Amino acid sequence: MHRTRVRVVEDALDANNTIARANREDFDRHGVTVLNLMSAPGAGKTTLLERALHEPLDDVRVGVLEGDVQGSMDADRIASLHVPVTQLNTDNGFGGECHLDANMVRSALPELPLPEIDLLVIENVGNLVCPAEFKVGEDARAMVCSVTEGEDKPLKYPLMFRSCELVVVNKLDLLPHLEIDLDKLLYNIDVVNPGVARMLVSARTGEGVEEWRQWLVELAHRRVSAPA
Amino acid sequence: MHRTRVRVVEDALDANNTIARANREDFDRHGVTVLNLMSAPGAGKTTLLERALHEPLDDVRVGVLEGDVQGSMDADRIASLHVPVTQLNTDNGFGGECHLDANMVRSALPELPLPEIDLLVIENVGNLVCPAEFKVGEDARAMVCSVTEGEDKPLKYPLMFRSCELVVVNKLDLLPHLEIDLDKLLYNIDVVNPGVARMLVSARTGEGVEEWRQWLVELAHRRVSAPA
Repeated sequence: MHRTRVRVVEDALDANNTIARANREDFDRHGVTVLNLMSAPGAGKTTLLERALHEPLDDVRVGVLEGDVQGSMDADRIASLHVPVTQLNTDNGFGGECHLDANMVRSALPELPLPEIDLLVIENVGNLVCPAEFKVGEDARAMVCSVTEGEDKPLKYPLMFRSCELVVVNKLDLLPHLEIDLDKLLYNIDVVNPGVARMLVSARTGEGVEEWRQWLVELAHRRVSAPA
Repeated sequence: MHRTRVRVVEDALDANNTIARANREDFDRHGVTVLNLMSAPGAGKTTLLERALHEPLDDVRVGVLEGDVQGSMDADRIASLHVPVTQLNTDNGFGGECHLDANMVRSALPELPLPEIDLLVIENVGNLVCPAEFKVGEDARAMVCSVTEGEDKPLKYPLMFRSCELVVVNKLDLLPHLEIDLDKLLYNIDVVNPGVARMLVSARTGEGVEEWRQWLVELAHRRVSAPA
């Protein structure tokens, strides 16, 4: 007699991971590289994307999925650059979900022009805690950290800093007007995620933006050069 | 035959509200007024508290409950002012809870010197979404909004702005170096919470801090003047 046993998986995130893998398979099928871009509210994710996408990103065709509790202001800003953008609002959730999860992203897939893009940037809800806990099917994670937030944030929100392969330190132009110790911030980033790539930029002045654009191009090409 | 019916309450927040009421009763018993202070990460909650508590707050004895995912940096800063402070870390939760709830605050009650204080300030986890959803037994809610976060935040995180009776707009000293339209920010705050009290401050320069201190004093006295 044939007998099998199925273990009940206790990981509360398991359902999310299952859906994230399904998303990933769909992205793979279309050859789309996916970046999960995260930060605290107002750190400058949208402005950095506007800066990066203001001109074509070499041969990389980009699409954007905007996650917000409410509104479509960021999507409107990206759409004005003639970049395909889909707005995903989380306010149907319990008081407004504070993060994107795999199932929310899955619900947006039919709206995304996957055959027409090479790189999908998912701009997550502004929050330094929960977005780091939920995979959405991404290939890579990056975060934006504004120097206005203070040098202690990596120590207070370590999971977010630890889960990203790139930390973009933004609003460098404000350094002369702040009391923050930039070296201390960079040290703290390294403490929680030793060796993580860091980039110093100012979305406002354009400093470092070309490096950020090149990082996105290389991310999109990573898939092409990786074994199938 | 005696028959009763108990309805299953579907509000997922009901258990939280029950515990929040229990907290409130404990605070009432000790005549302690409680402020739930919220903001995005790095908006300046702790610095504003340091500024307010640097000198005695008239006759008001203050205690602070510091909520953080991890670490005790903020509690250390407050303790150096000789203010009683209790650190509450949320990192035992699933990946680190992104907010304080009533039960977490309840677990900290035995550590709080309630008989020795008049005003308890609960500094919530830096997050513009979930903290607004969870009552913890507070009398009042205030939030700090930094001008560096951009004028669109009230529209993107309306529940937070709507649930507070005071919005402290901080980092005014940075205005000359930002592209933000302050009038637009104030207008947007009023759109989501018409008539809410607003205060323009700079924790760095001290501008508006005396008004903030007086607001705290009046909050503590509100209990005294309210009917029992």
